[in-house]
Amino acid sequence: MTGEGIIPVQHVMRTDPAHAALPRAPEWTGGAGYVIDRFVPIDCASIPITDLGFLRADAVYDVVTVSRGHFFRLKSHQERFARSCARMKLTNPFEAEAEARLLHKLVAKTGLRDAYVWWTVTRGANPRVPADRLHPDRFTNRFYAFVIPYVFIKEDKDRQVGINLMVSRDYIRIPQNAVDPRAKNFCSLDLNMSLMEAGASGAHWSVMTDGNGRLTESPGSNIFILKGGRILTPDNGCLEGVTGQTVFELGAKVGIEVKAEKVTTADLEAADEVFLTSSAGGIIPVSAVDGKQLSAGVGPVTTRLHNLYWELRWQGWHGTAVDYGDEE
Amino acid sequence: MTGEGIIPVQHVMRTDPAHAALPRAPEWTGGAGYVIDRFVPIDCASIPITDLGFLRADAVYDVVTVSRGHFFRLKSHQERFARSCARMKLTNPFEAEAEARLLHKLVAKTGLRDAYVWWTVTRGANPRVPADRLHPDRFTNRFYAFVIPYVFIKEDKDRQVGINLMVSRDYIRIPQNAVDPRAKNFCSLDLNMSLMEAGASGAHWSVMTDGNGRLTESPGSNIFILKGGRILTPDNGCLEGVTGQTVFELGAKVGIEVKAEKVTTADLEAADEVFLTSSAGGIIPVSAVDGKQLSAGVGPVTTRLHNLYWELRWQGWHGTAVDYGDEE
Repeated sequence: MTGEGIIPVQHVMRTDPAHAALPRAPEWTGGAGYVIDRFVPIDCASIPITDLGFLRADAVYDVVTVSRGHFFRLKSHQERFARSCARMKLTNPFEAEAEARLLHKLVAKTGLRDAYVWWTVTRGANPRVPADRLHPDRFTNRFYAFVIPYVFIKEDKDRQVGINLMVSRDYIRIPQNAVDPRAKNFCSLDLNMSLMEAGASGAHWSVMTDGNGRLTESPGSNIFILKGGRILTPDNGCLEGVTGQTVFELGAKVGIEVKAEKVTTADLEAADEVFLTSSAGGIIPVSAVDGKQLSAGVGPVTTRLHNLYWELRWQGWHGTAVDYGDEE
Repeated sequence: MTGEGIIPVQHVMRTDPAHAALPRAPEWTGGAGYVIDRFVPIDCASIPITDLGFLRADAVYDVVTVSRGHFFRLKSHQERFARSCARMKLTNPFEAEAEARLLHKLVAKTGLRDAYVWWTVTRGANPRVPADRLHPDRFTNRFYAFVIPYVFIKEDKDRQVGINLMVSRDYIRIPQNAVDPRAKNFCSLDLNMSLMEAGASGAHWSVMTDGNGRLTESPGSNIFILKGGRILTPDNGCLEGVTGQTVFELGAKVGIEVKAEKVTTADLEAADEVFLTSSAGGIIPVSAVDGKQLSAGVGPVTTRLHNLYWELRWQGWHGTAVDYGDEE
């Protein structure tokens, strides 16, 4: 703990020379894609315009990050992805082991040691016979993936001093009985529009309710609040976040109870500390809600969990070393 | 009217020799795409994998059809598209006139005289600076389009005898305060999953409620019911369908009142006639709801409106002749 309400800079992950990318041909260093059946440089990675993953957001996806040459919880992400596919009646053309090999190879192509790795299975193109559109087995589902250099969804300085979070008033989160958020999917126009709403009001990020005062999730993130010595996170209408799950384990390590239950906007406003979790952001401290300061900067529990998260990752906790071997 | 509950085959639009496609080089006859700044054969039309239109369904789109060499209500579709863009804070890189010229040229490339024409404006790629993701003016929105040969979303025989429509029990329509359906958008996983639900139960198509017994819309379609001599369509949580709007005008022509108001599942079950409207299907008669027959085949009002719709279209009503000129 710093005692100053600021996360120390050494805990803000960045690509330093000791962890720089491995040497690769220039067309691969900006990123790589896997499109249906082949690896391509990121600038050549594209989706057929008639794929229903594009036309209808008919797809599920997942994201795993690589820090200092190690995937974090690759297996958890793959397992969640398998559940997402099952929920949306999509068939992954790859078994888990082949999928993992593919993701390793994708990262290896780029030589990146700090990377954002994204993959999807889409419904694919419409079958030729219209009546077949009602039957999942008449589609050829497609696999796409890409890897790009890791960039935090929030800048270093924002993560050090905490962000101003806005509770969206203009949009509610798509409810679970419309599109199940536990299946990580593309239907995010509500989330993206709430970010524009937050931007217009001077906030740094948004969080969505269910329209009845219950918090759900934040764009790409789960939300946690500290209240009365316990850490709470909403138990409905949310992605089953892998970083969020990690907070339960970190809580156990530091002796703080973490619980998923009903969390209201009133709970948020009265919270002692607030943070967001995501693969693309790790643990992001929130220092203000709707412009109202929560505390003097980033709270001590958030700071502790944030730093522990990165320290443990860099020690190899839940890590899998990327196999860069055959690509050098 | 046939008196037999079947729509006569001459009213089922099909490409007959008199309306066959104009001669074109083989790479263009299967369809054409416009990708950001260029025309390409449909097989080459693709979207960069990192476009947020794909990753986050952050886009709006529209569809116009061409029958016998004429766009139907092109201006109405363009105006709706402009409203969709405004609702989602997207900026169309083309003014209306340039957009129309582009769509004409796209169809002309293929020589198709019966065509499905689709276009979109997507958010584009994420800006380099994460904080810019909260501001619509920091994105470069992108225009994509494609045209393919027209294929009805329902086969000729289904449209002649009417379809079996299922009220989805597993999914509700994404509500308007999450993603506004009046802005035609990609967030359709609810709709597509309801089609799978319908397929599994032996139905031909689905219709969604709001979860409280009110009908909303059907995948890609508006729903209309005939009850007590009036035609009703749900007034909330629906796309502002252009074919649906056409039904109001057809109703005026044949002296039947058409009204948008609250329509419940009970109203649907008690309806005398039911039909769906869409650009991709015209007017599709429904002859059964949840497996229960509504009437002896397709009802007389539905038949009359269906036939009038095509007769008027083929006479040039609301039509714009495609400019095939400079592409031959």
